[in-house]
Amino acid sequence: MPLKRIPGGVNAAKGFLSGTTACGIKRTGPLRSDLSIVASEFPATAAGVFTTNLVKAAPVLLSRRHLESGKARAVLLNSGNANACTGAPGLRAAEQTANSTAVALGLHADEVLICSTGRIGVQLPLAKILPGIRKAADALKSSPSAATAAAKSIMTSDSVPKQSAYEVKIGTKSFRIGGMAKGAGMISPNMATMLCVITTDASVPTAFLRKVLGEVTSRTFNCITVDGDCSTNDTVLTLANGASKTAIRTAVEKKAFAEALQAVCADLARAIVADGEGTSRVIELTVKGAKSESDAHKIGRAIANSQLVKCAWAGSDPNWGRIIDAAGYAGAALDPDKVEIAYDGILAAKNGMGCQDAKGEARLRKIAAKKEFAVTIDLHLGKGEAHLLTTDLTEEYVRLNLSEFSL
Amino acid sequence: MPLKRIPGGVNAAKGFLSGTTACGIKRTGPLRSDLSIVASEFPATAAGVFTTNLVKAAPVLLSRRHLESGKARAVLLNSGNANACTGAPGLRAAEQTANSTAVALGLHADEVLICSTGRIGVQLPLAKILPGIRKAADALKSSPSAATAAAKSIMTSDSVPKQSAYEVKIGTKSFRIGGMAKGAGMISPNMATMLCVITTDASVPTAFLRKVLGEVTSRTFNCITVDGDCSTNDTVLTLANGASKTAIRTAVEKKAFAEALQAVCADLARAIVADGEGTSRVIELTVKGAKSESDAHKIGRAIANSQLVKCAWAGSDPNWGRIIDAAGYAGAALDPDKVEIAYDGILAAKNGMGCQDAKGEARLRKIAAKKEFAVTIDLHLGKGEAHLLTTDLTEEYVRLNLSEFSL
Repeated sequence: MPLKRIPGGVNAAKGFLSGTTACGIKRTGPLRSDLSIVASEFPATAAGVFTTNLVKAAPVLLSRRHLESGKARAVLLNSGNANACTGAPGLRAAEQTANSTAVALGLHADEVLICSTGRIGVQLPLAKILPGIRKAADALKSSPSAATAAAKSIMTSDSVPKQSAYEVKIGTKSFRIGGMAKGAGMISPNMATMLCVITTDASVPTAFLRKVLGEVTSRTFNCITVDGDCSTNDTVLTLANGASKTAIRTAVEKKAFAEALQAVCADLARAIVADGEGTSRVIELTVKGAKSESDAHKIGRAIANSQLVKCAWAGSDPNWGRIIDAAGYAGAALDPDKVEIAYDGILAAKNGMGCQDAKGEARLRKIAAKKEFAVTIDLHLGKGEAHLLTTDLTEEYVRLNLSEFSL
Repeated sequence: MPLKRIPGGVNAAKGFLSGTTACGIKRTGPLRSDLSIVASEFPATAAGVFTTNLVKAAPVLLSRRHLESGKARAVLLNSGNANACTGAPGLRAAEQTANSTAVALGLHADEVLICSTGRIGVQLPLAKILPGIRKAADALKSSPSAATAAAKSIMTSDSVPKQSAYEVKIGTKSFRIGGMAKGAGMISPNMATMLCVITTDASVPTAFLRKVLGEVTSRTFNCITVDGDCSTNDTVLTLANGASKTAIRTAVEKKAFAEALQAVCADLARAIVADGEGTSRVIELTVKGAKSESDAHKIGRAIANSQLVKCAWAGSDPNWGRIIDAAGYAGAALDPDKVEIAYDGILAAKNGMGCQDAKGEARLRKIAAKKEFAVTIDLHLGKGEAHLLTTDLTEEYVRLNLSEFSL
């Protein structure tokens, strides 16, 4: 299944356009682009995966409702305001923005999906956003630079726009798939959230799109963690407009599509972690030999979210004691005497005990001083396995998250 | 039930002695006291509560076994080495230290309990500890200053020794109860753990002692959290030697004893949080109106362990958005539209939305700038309630936990 990396982000697939504008949603700082529309020239099937937080922002509630039909034509995205914890007025405001987008594009309101990111608990400034929607609609273009502008407009604490796209050949047919994303969990002073929009010109039945998006999300975006906080607005949307005339029906086609979607999501997930606020390292964490996959994930999350483990990594300390401790309180089966922990394949602990002399420890410290390294914990209990991408915890992270009032 | 605060810590109760020495267990830094024995002149009933971490240090395994009899006469404590993740050699070393203590005091080995705190994964330096045990035994005294010396010897990252003691009158009878503690979870660079020893001269049947210690621990030490990490060595021990001739048998006596034990544990728990490494604030967190007590605790822990909530507190930000977000992912029942959040009784959010104007927000910021304040979250769903003591998350915390290699 040849996958070729191509430029263009959300505009890489045929029949997709994006338009961006700056309407001044953020309360402070210089005027930056903060509103964009991604639209399909043709009807499209659509699926979404949303935050599991019981506190769901208005745009999440609205997009989920609009996705019940399994179809959508446009996504409106804004940064600077999350429209979360805004009650009934917030939901009405979200509806108004969807209506305005539909009017501007000549669509039905329920063909419009919405993503918001930014401060929680503040009503949307509709007087700024509604005129902005018209401007973004007027700016719709299919160029790669328009896609990059859209990817930039959803940045909050992100330092770089995050895009990925591939062209996929299946025999004599081909399709394109691309996407953009922002933010790494709730890591930013602005309550940044994870948003992702993926577009494809393959023709994908809704039921399969929903299934594969759920599976791929659980293996990519749900396997990254910066601070363990799950936001009110996390959203991954996929639109498939069939403009390539390549249909995804057979097992081979489905496999190719799943792999391509996985490639885009994995790129974006890694970009999110690498750009995590105040982080200085990306750690590939593998838990294997767990009694079950669910146990492997529990242990992986406990380690990846342990403040002490993350602080040790920030200090180039290949600490295995804090890792085994976190594994021990994860709520999963574990036999301390069987645990192995390795940094980049070099064992730091075996049978639950340290196993390196001074020379070996120096070697481990060199690994932990790198910007990227792999940590593997093998429980020797079963076949459960989990792969997570995570970061360290730095003083810079704390500094950046001290207060929202300074923004 | 008149409770009178008295000096003396673990030596406050009649018939208890403590002895301390410095035997150089720590690998670096100036020689500091690091070993102590707390002993009863008379046979005593005893109970313990231990870490729930599946990775349990050797002293935890040994003390649990020795407590099966419901009796104990002495506790050996050391700092500088946790004797955790040390396998069978570690357990044998723990047994040797218990044996040596028993020989020095003329007891059976299974009358000796052990507590260790310090670095994980390093074998106990028995050549230093065994002679130290003899010295500590020779130094046994009943004075308040001996108790303070013992409380100091278990300090790792603690900045002050932590002691509490009360005299309790029940009608014409009375008893004394006192204790010492160290560390706040795994918050220190040395993998500090929570250790607590409580002594009383009341005569308390083992079954009741176990029951009441479990209940009080769940309301005090298990309701504090600094970083959410649960150590391999956490231990709370209680010895009751009956030297006051006051027996705890009737409902009135049991109530009085429970209250006194609660008072000592609450004092020590608060002292631990207030001395949390790199923390600048103590927050009294109350969750009420939850569907169940277990739900209230889940939500309380999610809030108290949220990096983002704790960073906001460090920045004097009375953030309610991050609090409601953490509540939303706690895995407990919650209706976002019913949530109320208050700082020192002043509502910051009502019906899941912010409810203060600029003047009100300024008032909330003043509260969040204090060294101690109360945060209450009311879910309006039921009668479940939880009370936690927690701290903020500062850059200093990260700095202190960057590496164990620098120590």
